[in-house]
Amino acid sequence: MTGTNSGQMKLGAFLMAGGHHIAAWRHPDAIANAGVNIDHFIELARMAEAAKFDMVFVEDAAAIRERDPDLASQGARSTMFEPLSLLAALAVNTSHIGLVATASTTYNEPYGLARAFASLDQLSGGRSGWNLVTSASELEAENFVSSGLRPHAQRYERAEEFAGAAAALWDGVDSDAHTISDGVYADPAKLHPVDHHGKHFTLTGILDSQRSPQGRPIMVQAGASEAGKNLAARTADVVFTAAQTIEEAQAYYADLKSRMPAFGRKPDDLKILPGISPIVANSQSEARAKYEALQDLIPDEVGVALLASYLSIKDLSQYPLDGPLPEMPATDGIQSRQQLIVDQARRENLNIRQSARKFAGARGHWQLIGTPMQIADRLEERFLAKAADGFNIMGAYFPGALKDFIDLVLPELRRRGLFRTEYEGKTLRGNLGLSIPERAV
Amino acid sequence: MTGTNSGQMKLGAFLMAGGHHIAAWRHPDAIANAGVNIDHFIELARMAEAAKFDMVFVEDAAAIRERDPDLASQGARSTMFEPLSLLAALAVNTSHIGLVATASTTYNEPYGLARAFASLDQLSGGRSGWNLVTSASELEAENFVSSGLRPHAQRYERAEEFAGAAAALWDGVDSDAHTISDGVYADPAKLHPVDHHGKHFTLTGILDSQRSPQGRPIMVQAGASEAGKNLAARTADVVFTAAQTIEEAQAYYADLKSRMPAFGRKPDDLKILPGISPIVANSQSEARAKYEALQDLIPDEVGVALLASYLSIKDLSQYPLDGPLPEMPATDGIQSRQQLIVDQARRENLNIRQSARKFAGARGHWQLIGTPMQIADRLEERFLAKAADGFNIMGAYFPGALKDFIDLVLPELRRRGLFRTEYEGKTLRGNLGLSIPERAV
Ligand SMILES: Cc1cc2nc3c(=O)[nH]c(=O)nc-3n(C[C@H](O)[C@H](O)[C@H](O)COP(=O)(O)O)c2cc1C
Ligand SMILES: Cc1cc2nc3c(=O)[nH]c(=O)nc-3n(C[C@H](O)[C@H](O)[C@H](O)COP(=O)(O)O)c2cc1C
Repeated sequence: MTGTNSGQMKLGAFLMAGGHHIAAWRHPDAIANAGVNIDHFIELARMAEAAKFDMVFVEDAAAIRERDPDLASQGARSTMFEPLSLLAALAVNTSHIGLVATASTTYNEPYGLARAFASLDQLSGGRSGWNLVTSASELEAENFVSSGLRPHAQRYERAEEFAGAAAALWDGVDSDAHTISDGVYADPAKLHPVDHHGKHFTLTGILDSQRSPQGRPIMVQAGASEAGKNLAARTADVVFTAAQTIEEAQAYYADLKSRMPAFGRKPDDLKILPGISPIVANSQSEARAKYEALQDLIPDEVGVALLASYLSIKDLSQYPLDGPLPEMPATDGIQSRQQLIVDQARRENLNIRQSARKFAGARGHWQLIGTPMQIADRLEERFLAKAADGFNIMGAYFPGALKDFIDLVLPELRRRGLFRTEYEGKTLRGNLGLSIPERAV
Repeated sequence: MTGTNSGQMKLGAFLMAGGHHIAAWRHPDAIANAGVNIDHFIELARMAEAAKFDMVFVEDAAAIRERDPDLASQGARSTMFEPLSLLAALAVNTSHIGLVATASTTYNEPYGLARAFASLDQLSGGRSGWNLVTSASELEAENFVSSGLRPHAQRYERAEEFAGAAAALWDGVDSDAHTISDGVYADPAKLHPVDHHGKHFTLTGILDSQRSPQGRPIMVQAGASEAGKNLAARTADVVFTAAQTIEEAQAYYADLKSRMPAFGRKPDDLKILPGISPIVANSQSEARAKYEALQDLIPDEVGVALLASYLSIKDLSQYPLDGPLPEMPATDGIQSRQQLIVDQARRENLNIRQSARKFAGARGHWQLIGTPMQIADRLEERFLAKAADGFNIMGAYFPGALKDFIDLVLPELRRRGLFRTEYEGKTLRGNLGLSIPERAV
């Protein structure tokens, strides 16, 4: 089962304060103020770059994630850099790795955001990516509007118009527009002012930037609803997803790629990267012990509160923790994550406490615990089975979990020809093997 | 006339692509793509830091400045980094100098912007500053709304509410809230969720950051209207201004400081820094030749178009260039700059061409051309005459004009005890000699 050079995995490194695991900050090796420690992030980004990862990825919410102050007291996510400023600081400390920031179409404006990503692309020489989200959380809504979370359909309608306006802005400046010579700064024939008059936005200007070295920033998405999948099929270069079983992952993969031809795109134009949380050690029992030690750091109430927030249930602790999950409420938040949790609880027969504990570890992503060989086998299996074009590595705690993956699993993937030994190019688009999109007209 | 240690000037270095002069990019030493060349900005920031400047300052407009594509072809301002990402990249390449970014209250939301500045403050160890502007330009309005530039009063009403909400967010996290030990990440008693329900904004959350090392980011402003001056007297730590004569500068200084006691503040709590554009050389004639060479690089139509944009006149070129300025239209843009141009034209008896040429050089800021001794004399005079607490150095072209000021003028100011030889602290607030504000309640 040896891959060819053209059939290699794409890898992302998910960066999040002390780690993706809810209790990462309690880990004995944890850096106390990891969320706002730039040296920590520089170290992680350089580590991922030395290992030839395609990109680092920073999630986002314009809110602390914990509503209840007692839970905020337990939540390491409650301190973090704002993603675009964090990635700007990482841009000048790296040279090849892609830099993907999450940003919301619901609480931003196209000109401002397109400009920020254009700036990051100039700072990094064409390595920026935008993980477009519509912000499903009520906590975010409360920081911006009095009317609460907007309905799902309305958020995606706005997202679609937003993405189009941003692309038009990026396309508004030709790559050879700025000659800066012979008394001419820019060639007016190569500047194309946007003239957008839509339902959500009006804009008529030109971006104050040169053309991106990669044409446009890379578009990333993680939507799982119908609207989310259609937007991704139409506009995304990379999609993150959370899947437990290989069947789920294959179904999502086939579904998403099958939507692309309708938008004039080839399935290869989009890379699907499910998240995985690998806990690796040289023996299975050692890996298992690492995992259990981490799980033991989760206080019940923290796990339950995190589960509740993903389920869109205000107070899950009113139900007996030894009983089953209650009926799910309708949600304008993340339906797919709700479904994934319910399915897993049913499949594995979990009560609320067990579900919470399990979920708090990898937040719905695929938890892999084992030896380098075992993990490489399962990644290869999903890669070859068209369940994934690569993976987003959700390091449970930093730097340990990422370092272990790099030191132990990557050599095995490389031995099998499944991952690069050198970057192919200097832009994120180039390393992903994607071509520069045509100008939208 | 030797100053004491406690009576030293504060200095800002205005950074703008190839320089503040409209034709900087045509200068023989110009870096072609200076606006999006991060190495260029790192070099300038380090140069200013080595010289112990209080801060670098980056202006902003969410639009290219030139409406007419033929003028865009001449405008170096048409490519630039977005300020917050630029300063994030500079934060990790400097250690002491303040980092002031301009951002608009008209086209942002308090949670998003307060968060971005908090992030910059964490990245830099307490060196961030926010130049609050209300965005007076129609070109910016066209990138955001269909209804055109909002009236001046409405912009300032929103700005005032915005500034209050941002301060409440920064104050919502106590400096000792994040203990991150003994299983407690944050002490809930030290987190104070904002509960803001105003005319323009609703927000009820906590910032996802630790307390700023300098308490709050430094507030900078440059307003010159009644509303602008009142907001500055109430909230600003630093004010930039443009003034030609010492009398104008003294009047503005006295006016602004006299408004402070009504808001419970001492005049010393606010530093007023007029912009100056120094062209310095070892002899007066050499300095003059440098200046004229630069002025000769301005094409008439570019100067006239720039003047028109500051005057809020759509097409100034319809008037004879050898005739006087026409009647001024009422503007919701920058009234004070309009007035300054009209006053200068009257005082110096300038026709449109001369006015444009003069204005295009320093954009209304004080143009100083002379020897180090001459320039130091005039800066000292204004400093001691309570016309300024320091100056914002608008380098006409980079690195030359800034380097000359540092190499030639600063030693003379230091000899007179008027400027520091070492940083007093590590935060911007500390170096400005300002105390951490009380928590707003
Ligand atoms: C790996 C991964 C990362 C995500 N990161 C974020 C994030 O940082 N911020 C956010 O608001 N949503 C995030 N989401 C949620 C998705 O953007 C999306 O809102 C969610 O999957 C629901 O999709 P839907 O609205 O199309 O149902 C993430 C999802 C996945 C799978
Ligand atoms: C040194 C200086 C720099 C300024 N920089 C900006 C800027 O970057 N962006 C902006 O929109 N306005 C800028 N302004 C304009 C002021 O913020 C303000 O809008 C203007 O002086 C008009 O004030 P008023 O609206 O109170 O009359 C600047 C003004 C000065 C004096």
